[in-house]
Amino acid sequence: MEYELLKQVNSPEELKKLTLLDLKRYAYELRAYITQTVLRQGGHLASSLGAVEIALALHYVFNAPHDKIIFDVGHQAYAHKIITGRRGAFKDLRTDSGVTGFPNREESAYDAFTAGHASASLSAALGYCRARAMENSDYKVVAVIGDGALTGGMAFEALNDIGASGQSMVIILNDNDMSIRKNTGALNRYFSRLRISKGYLAFKASVKKAVSALPFFGNKMIKLLDKCKSAMRAVFRTNKMFEQMGIRYYGPFDGNNAEDLIGVLGQAKNFKGPVLVHLLTQKGCGFSDAEKDPTAFHGLNPVASTPEHNFGEIAGDALCSLAQTDSRICAITAAMPDGTGLLGFMEKFPSRCFDVAIAEQHAVTLAAGLAAGGQKPYVAVYSSFLQRGFDQIIHDTALNNLPVTFLIDRAGVIGADGVTHQGVFDISYLNLIPNLTILTPKDGQELREMVQFSQGFNAPLAIRYPKGFTQNYTSAEPFTLGKWEVIASAPKQAKPVYLLAAGSRMLQIALQTHGATVVNARCIKPLDTQFLESAAKNGATPTTLITLEDNVLQGGFGASVLAYINARNLSAKVITLGLKDQFIRTHSIQQAFTDNALTPQNLQSLIK
Amino acid sequence: MEYELLKQVNSPEELKKLTLLDLKRYAYELRAYITQTVLRQGGHLASSLGAVEIALALHYVFNAPHDKIIFDVGHQAYAHKIITGRRGAFKDLRTDSGVTGFPNREESAYDAFTAGHASASLSAALGYCRARAMENSDYKVVAVIGDGALTGGMAFEALNDIGASGQSMVIILNDNDMSIRKNTGALNRYFSRLRISKGYLAFKASVKKAVSALPFFGNKMIKLLDKCKSAMRAVFRTNKMFEQMGIRYYGPFDGNNAEDLIGVLGQAKNFKGPVLVHLLTQKGCGFSDAEKDPTAFHGLNPVASTPEHNFGEIAGDALCSLAQTDSRICAITAAMPDGTGLLGFMEKFPSRCFDVAIAEQHAVTLAAGLAAGGQKPYVAVYSSFLQRGFDQIIHDTALNNLPVTFLIDRAGVIGADGVTHQGVFDISYLNLIPNLTILTPKDGQELREMVQFSQGFNAPLAIRYPKGFTQNYTSAEPFTLGKWEVIASAPKQAKPVYLLAAGSRMLQIALQTHGATVVNARCIKPLDTQFLESAAKNGATPTTLITLEDNVLQGGFGASVLAYINARNLSAKVITLGLKDQFIRTHSIQQAFTDNALTPQNLQSLIK
Repeated sequence: MEYELLKQVNSPEELKKLTLLDLKRYAYELRAYITQTVLRQGGHLASSLGAVEIALALHYVFNAPHDKIIFDVGHQAYAHKIITGRRGAFKDLRTDSGVTGFPNREESAYDAFTAGHASASLSAALGYCRARAMENSDYKVVAVIGDGALTGGMAFEALNDIGASGQSMVIILNDNDMSIRKNTGALNRYFSRLRISKGYLAFKASVKKAVSALPFFGNKMIKLLDKCKSAMRAVFRTNKMFEQMGIRYYGPFDGNNAEDLIGVLGQAKNFKGPVLVHLLTQKGCGFSDAEKDPTAFHGLNPVASTPEHNFGEIAGDALCSLAQTDSRICAITAAMPDGTGLLGFMEKFPSRCFDVAIAEQHAVTLAAGLAAGGQKPYVAVYSSFLQRGFDQIIHDTALNNLPVTFLIDRAGVIGADGVTHQGVFDISYLNLIPNLTILTPKDGQELREMVQFSQGFNAPLAIRYPKGFTQNYTSAEPFTLGKWEVIASAPKQAKPVYLLAAGSRMLQIALQTHGATVVNARCIKPLDTQFLESAAKNGATPTTLITLEDNVLQGGFGASVLAYINARNLSAKVITLGLKDQFIRTHSIQQAFTDNALTPQNLQSLIK
Repeated sequence: MEYELLKQVNSPEELKKLTLLDLKRYAYELRAYITQTVLRQGGHLASSLGAVEIALALHYVFNAPHDKIIFDVGHQAYAHKIITGRRGAFKDLRTDSGVTGFPNREESAYDAFTAGHASASLSAALGYCRARAMENSDYKVVAVIGDGALTGGMAFEALNDIGASGQSMVIILNDNDMSIRKNTGALNRYFSRLRISKGYLAFKASVKKAVSALPFFGNKMIKLLDKCKSAMRAVFRTNKMFEQMGIRYYGPFDGNNAEDLIGVLGQAKNFKGPVLVHLLTQKGCGFSDAEKDPTAFHGLNPVASTPEHNFGEIAGDALCSLAQTDSRICAITAAMPDGTGLLGFMEKFPSRCFDVAIAEQHAVTLAAGLAAGGQKPYVAVYSSFLQRGFDQIIHDTALNNLPVTFLIDRAGVIGADGVTHQGVFDISYLNLIPNLTILTPKDGQELREMVQFSQGFNAPLAIRYPKGFTQNYTSAEPFTLGKWEVIASAPKQAKPVYLLAAGSRMLQIALQTHGATVVNARCIKPLDTQFLESAAKNGATPTTLITLEDNVLQGGFGASVLAYINARNLSAKVITLGLKDQFIRTHSIQQAFTDNALTPQNLQSLIK
């Protein structure tokens, strides 16, 4: 493909020179370029394709970076990145030589706010509005938020404040009726009613007609839609809910019709006070595969990525086994049954699986309530997103000592998803919570054993693991609470060295060394104190304990080991390996490990 | 006062035997008893008085503990405690020999869920509902939530799920138009419109008439209202907002008319699906002082409590000074301008002070947005409530390295407010966050210096302090980032001992010992590594460093010191004193310190 227009546009100023007719072609090229890139690099395809016209119209109408455009989460921000001078770097999406997968203040002045966790854009946008008022500036503030992110309580907190503030702000509600999966909740039902309006039905019909035009894209056999043509010319309609909060509501409009959008945004731009523009978009618009199955195309991994066993799927499967005979078992997800491995459970036990929408706070306390009611709830969630439920783990779960189990996926260094999604704090933020037990499995079999163990465990429990693992071990000792296991013994030495590895990835690194005893430190809290005591009893020459974790060192696993050895006055030298006190900005797990001395080479030199 | 009826009722069963006429008298006695107790013991008077009839009607209509009644926060739960067999223990409210200030599962089977942080009740209640469905039970579930707590995003997340779930649940909206202070936000405006209804105006008028009857209460000259008589007989009205979410709305009703309430709740009890009953109550109802100034009477300290200098007020005052010449200075509170010392700032700089309602998540990211927009925001918040904004500190503030300053009040052991309000995790949960600096002042002057320092500091900053302090020091060295100061030197010793005290309270304990050098460890992150290096360089015999903090040991200040000494191989023995890995359930700060070996006696024995 030639990308004629794409090459002409290297800034919003150049975009503004295009005619409305050119814009159609430009959108077409944007879609093709995004699709081509994401299929190679991984990333978020469907939501990005749906929001092409939004990004395009925003930059046509507003004057970024003077005007502040804040994308919520930023799945939809790919077109925005390409328009704002990052076309070349976009080729290397989600790598250190290219652009990050989400808006990032450090990457571009056009990214007004770094985003990666849902529902934060409205608060940040109001911050900009109030900053503007304080310094008497005149810039415009726009927040782009999906209907999924709007279910997050934080967004509601912001709307409440925005409505009362009277600040001029344009809120773009990008409503594709599909955040990561099908949205749930009453709010979604409410939006559905709006969607059934006459105008929307006509719009859908015209899209269906347009689907017939399916050109081939290069040799990839990728079907591209010409464009989401629209017959919809919705008149302004009033939405009670937002209006009651003091926010003017306009919509719904066809969010995939650039010309209409430019007109609507041009009006909204000069509105005094907060205004919400409700746009209906087609997730995956223009890419028929994505359009047919947006869930599968939500987050794509690079085609060439190493196949790994998936921890989350094993956890979900183990849960299904338990649930067959134990009617108390139930599961909770915050809009991510796929990513967290709960899809199977959801299908088999629909009445015991609760998708609460993007609402981690509620997810945790709902689980606490279920536990208080005598059930056995499991919260399956990504490490980084569980940060949203931190207070609820302390105050509603642990304080009550309620038997909620947290299945914490994507723990540790995250890779291509980048700095906002790192799961590198969980050991520390869970370690400090009384009554909470923390486990991490070495492989799938051990995760199964841990899930089985959880069934009879009557207290809060966290099991943390990365997305996948590559190695299965023949286990010497089945999992027992508070017991570590030796995976590889070193010959008896005068100065013994133990590698205490927290989790599958650390174990893999440790096993590439020789001369040390490699230990699967599967219980992070409580520690295997018996093991530590006996390892430290080595006569005159002190034992060396080297801890490994892909979590920040501060408050982590190694810190616990050191604190124990120190408090008990044991004669062991503790060396803690883990992540430095910095945000991890590389997109490569390997690079992050190298940057933090988590390599077999470094370990080997420490052993000597 | 005789408390005739009060003494007759020791359970909800006995309450049910009272006639409707008796109930009026009973409510009168409840109010008197609560007032008498709170004036002596401290606690939440105004909200408790307002909710007397709610508790009474709930226990008249429902069958707790079979039916689950969940109070949000639980300020309003005093009457509930007295009705449910805790009349005697209530005398010693907020002490270890009496009852806790909030609902507590460990205290009574009638307390279906422990509460202390706002907005959590709806999630817990839905958990009970789903547990009920899973085991085919028939109990009823009631959540009592104030209009203030409803602004918390977590409540909205729950409403969204409740509406979709179709579960039968009675939500009591206790609307007194006043959470801790005057509510803010669009939602409140919306409620206001409901309040202006004809029925409500009639109700208000009748209340004003009733105010004329002011009997004296003992020799305390306390004016008690006979009762909030009501002329209001509101008809069921439909509320669009809740109805749109799938929740049936009934109201508003007079929440201080027991007879009406019993009728309304009797109907709501058997409603299929979720129903919200909107009750208008008078905060402080029946106690004219509290009624006139509910803010002053929100949280009372025991009359006899030691007068302390207030850290929060000094922080607020210091902020006012800065703001006079620096137009970038702005402040944010989540519905607590009084408690956090911001009232003065709010009066002087109303356009730069943002009360965002009970919404800590939004508060933090709003600040991040303000900082991104070039302003200098300060978030004044209680330690325990900031747990709600944990992810927002990491993801929206620290990751962007935005210069937001957190003024963290009520840090450390909390005393009478009890287990839900302990501020004993903040050092740990902040320590793990990259880019964040953590300070703690020894006295008011140092807090002023820290606030002044923050003005020129271009990164995230946390200053944590307890409510008050008793001692002012003549400072040797003014505050400098990364520098500790010696407060009391010990004579030169062969085996020197340093007491590294984090904060005013720890310093006070350390200064009651002799034979050790007492250090004001005012920088928790970064540590004064130069000090540590030089203290550890003491020839052959090792130095002893004893750290003191009223924070959990796991991931705390002492852990940082130990990690540094260990990583640098310094020859110092580190002893970490702090809070054990347990929830602190005592209501006495002194007891908590004793339980955790934070006493001069223990310190002295360690020094020897």
